[in-house]
Amino acid sequence: MSKIFFDVGVSLDGYIAGDNRGPKNPLGDHGPTIHNWMYQQKAFWRHLGMSGGKEETEDGNIIDDTFARTGSYIMGKRMFEEGEANWPEDLFKANVYVLTHEKRNPWFQKGSTTFYFINDGIESALEKAKQSSKGKDIRIQGGADTIQQFLNAGLIEEFTIHIAPVIIGSGIRLMDSIKRNVFNVEIDKVIHSNLASHIKYVTRSDANKKASH
Amino acid sequence: MSKIFFDVGVSLDGYIAGDNRGPKNPLGDHGPTIHNWMYQQKAFWRHLGMSGGKEETEDGNIIDDTFARTGSYIMGKRMFEEGEANWPEDLFKANVYVLTHEKRNPWFQKGSTTFYFINDGIESALEKAKQSSKGKDIRIQGGADTIQQFLNAGLIEEFTIHIAPVIIGSGIRLMDSIKRNVFNVEIDKVIHSNLASHIKYVTRSDANKKASH
Repeated sequence: MSKIFFDVGVSLDGYIAGDNRGPKNPLGDHGPTIHNWMYQQKAFWRHLGMSGGKEETEDGNIIDDTFARTGSYIMGKRMFEEGEANWPEDLFKANVYVLTHEKRNPWFQKGSTTFYFINDGIESALEKAKQSSKGKDIRIQGGADTIQQFLNAGLIEEFTIHIAPVIIGSGIRLMDSIKRNVFNVEIDKVIHSNLASHIKYVTRSDANKKASH
Repeated sequence: MSKIFFDVGVSLDGYIAGDNRGPKNPLGDHGPTIHNWMYQQKAFWRHLGMSGGKEETEDGNIIDDTFARTGSYIMGKRMFEEGEANWPEDLFKANVYVLTHEKRNPWFQKGSTTFYFINDGIESALEKAKQSSKGKDIRIQGGADTIQQFLNAGLIEEFTIHIAPVIIGSGIRLMDSIKRNVFNVEIDKVIHSNLASHIKYVTRSDANKKASH
């Protein structure tokens, strides 16, 4: 059964990106520092098709596992626009559903990444993502607004946050205007390193109970 | 050498208290749920001089250790006003310095708790707290505004946050308007339980380097 999850890095003060985010300033001011733990891992650069990083630690295994479990992706338009300008070709190696008001034909990249542009809401994107995930899981890639929409609809079943020991000061918060009582949260596991605290949660909600059957 | 630290529970969405906080609604709407992990520990109730709780786990040891290391306390006026209406007598068993504009004589409680009311700022309170801490550590008890003042002055040397798997939705954030570049943060240790994720950090700043010498 495909799980619907997200997996994001946050600063210690709760931001997933800094101010002034955009295609020319991906992740916003000081935002990249949130991912220092990741940039140090060889696994991260391997998935980008580049060489880089200096460590093969448990932090890197987390990156590998997250790529391996994912069969399709959903993301918001602003994240896509940042990525369109900056990501290497065929980063996702799966279908990616972009939530947008813009009508646009699918973008078939070299390799196995295809971006589809969805104009009729998160449930429609989710349905398509499920159909193409080949039994693997569906990652709600971000940004914060997209994750919040899925959380508030009770559709997230698992999520992992990587809390970096970094203060950003201002920016875009992960946990903003999350509704109480839509879902319950349980701590599933914590992986500790000196680079970040990786905490995995599982949720229980009426909506995700329904979605699983 | 006395360390200056804080130790607080936060919800998964980053709040240390809910909305509508006050003496008649301590911790604000839904705020007490942030501390569920603590209320389950016998250690917590023992420090209140009451019987209660059902567990003696590592979570409880954390509570014991925090009380044991603390030689004096600093808190803001709103936290004091909530506590004045609700805390048992002699909870702190040490000097407590309350940051306030109100002039008021010290309040000597039965036992060894005395509240002193400080009108001339955080550094003055800190000086007095150091003098009375008998070589133990100084706890910046809260609330969020007081902790933020100490963080932004670079005066916090260690801190522990207990992240509860609970969504509050709105309220008072711990990490709000924290300045970048005042201090660096390192993860010191993580204690994982299914009740909360306890993460201890140490900081490095020019201010706390100076304060230690």
